[in-house]
Amino acid sequence: MQPAAGALRIHDGDGHVVGVDIGASNLRVALADMSGKVLGKWSASTKATSSPAMVIEQIRTGMKYLLEQASVPRRSLLSVAAGAPGITDADAGVVVATSYLRGWKDVPLRRLLEAALRVPAAVENDVRMAAIGENWKGAARGVGDFAFLAIGTGIAAGVFANGSLIHGADFTAGEIGYMHVPGTPEDAAKHGAPGSLESVIGGEGVRQQWLRCCNGTGTAVNRNLSATEIFERATSGDELARGVLNRSAKILAYALYNISLVLNCRLFVLGGGVGMSAPLRDSTCQYLQHFNQPVRLKLTISSLGQDAQLIGAIRLAMNKAESRIGPAGSG
Amino acid sequence: MQPAAGALRIHDGDGHVVGVDIGASNLRVALADMSGKVLGKWSASTKATSSPAMVIEQIRTGMKYLLEQASVPRRSLLSVAAGAPGITDADAGVVVATSYLRGWKDVPLRRLLEAALRVPAAVENDVRMAAIGENWKGAARGVGDFAFLAIGTGIAAGVFANGSLIHGADFTAGEIGYMHVPGTPEDAAKHGAPGSLESVIGGEGVRQQWLRCCNGTGTAVNRNLSATEIFERATSGDELARGVLNRSAKILAYALYNISLVLNCRLFVLGGGVGMSAPLRDSTCQYLQHFNQPVRLKLTISSLGQDAQLIGAIRLAMNKAESRIGPAGSG
Repeated sequence: MQPAAGALRIHDGDGHVVGVDIGASNLRVALADMSGKVLGKWSASTKATSSPAMVIEQIRTGMKYLLEQASVPRRSLLSVAAGAPGITDADAGVVVATSYLRGWKDVPLRRLLEAALRVPAAVENDVRMAAIGENWKGAARGVGDFAFLAIGTGIAAGVFANGSLIHGADFTAGEIGYMHVPGTPEDAAKHGAPGSLESVIGGEGVRQQWLRCCNGTGTAVNRNLSATEIFERATSGDELARGVLNRSAKILAYALYNISLVLNCRLFVLGGGVGMSAPLRDSTCQYLQHFNQPVRLKLTISSLGQDAQLIGAIRLAMNKAESRIGPAGSG
Repeated sequence: MQPAAGALRIHDGDGHVVGVDIGASNLRVALADMSGKVLGKWSASTKATSSPAMVIEQIRTGMKYLLEQASVPRRSLLSVAAGAPGITDADAGVVVATSYLRGWKDVPLRRLLEAALRVPAAVENDVRMAAIGENWKGAARGVGDFAFLAIGTGIAAGVFANGSLIHGADFTAGEIGYMHVPGTPEDAAKHGAPGSLESVIGGEGVRQQWLRCCNGTGTAVNRNLSATEIFERATSGDELARGVLNRSAKILAYALYNISLVLNCRLFVLGGGVGMSAPLRDSTCQYLQHFNQPVRLKLTISSLGQDAQLIGAIRLAMNKAESRIGPAGSG
């Protein structure tokens, strides 16, 4: 049974939500029912997209398409949640700053979504959104203390403590790409430049390690490998690649250990293009075996992969709907 | 008006609590009313104390003395809270492990206190207890995201995030003495040995730095200085001491910055014998000026000093009493 238009009380399973993942290169939209079941997905390139108005229009197009495809009436839509790259004030619903999307500053994304889509909206930083997804349906299902690390070009973490997402005083909790550990540059990062940790083990940092190794050898090697390809090559006996993998894994192990000392989160979930690399995980686990004081930590790869953010967005949209109407089943 | 014996409902300001700070060298007890006003303090040496039974007996002696001195009837006592050094399971009320007190293991301190004193009891790790104190009446009053660092022989932090104390999955959150930063040993700590960070900037670590500097010079210098004395000496133009202070401050700045990246806690409160050193704070602040991505952090010295834990224990005891009877004023 569908609720009447404008009704605030719904029956168990009634109503739908939309989750959005606003990425640097793609925008993805998913439609789900209030049990969390995904009814459809839609995506578009954001490479030519810059203004908030263009992003909102893309979301509206995707939403309309998905509702039609699933034969879900517009009035059944209860809420929308969107994850955005960059510093996001989840309370105010504002994207404070991002180096993607041609540098949004203080964009009131929640208000724009609510005005355009006429449903309650929630916004969250993309990495935290992925952590919500992993906590709901992924590798950290039901774990109250864990960190999700997104390792791509940059590095950031979404952190749960005491069962709650940590935002911090300025919504910058988890910006661990700036962390200093033995083996990373000692100088503080300049504004706009990569942080100490990500400059060595982010995607571009790993490539730079590789190029330095190549320059040091006389033999012909492939200079155009991605971080993941370099790590894969290490497993097939390439000594240069093995050196890059070992160095990266050792530094990642220091970073994970330092985070675990602060939070005592036993579980770490690795995501992102570089973080999903199995050789990186395996080598990092070997280094972590030495770090067993006061407790040993556990490392695993994201089970949701690139869907983590979208699934987190669905969960957040469901939370938003439930906070408005009471939990599903109580209506 | 005093409540009748056994009454669970009290009037505003009625009732009293006892806070206890079980330290490696001293045990301190304080009596307070339910407005948090301290009516008296008592202390005894724990140097000859080892067993939990001896500690409980000392607490009982102190409590009895304080009640008599303040003419507070025994039946007015609502609760007691005790801070203990080491890993403490605050939910179960158990001191899991400590290297002090001749190595307690799995001591059910809350149950022992409740049996001996016949009031509800709460227990907490001593550094977290100090963080509770600073959050209530000290340098972090009302701040929802901050870290209290106790720097003595060892180093540990009590961390608040989202307005709540973080314990972690195994009650070891804040064990940052093991942290690795540029300039600390790269090898993982062995069981029972000092961690990487504390081996350099804990009290004994600073003394070791000093002795190495002394060995490298031909001139006669005082080898028997404490960490705090070495730091003070740096401010009066001693170049050797200045080197030790700068190195310690730089390493502390890395550690604070790394913690702030995880939690985005803007405020750090320094406590403990070494942490209370003004020259250390001043020099660390200078290094921190370089670390301003994504946000600048603030550093201050504990305003409660060695009373922080005792005041935290009073607050925790008041929480315990209020959770049993409803908040003061609602009775």
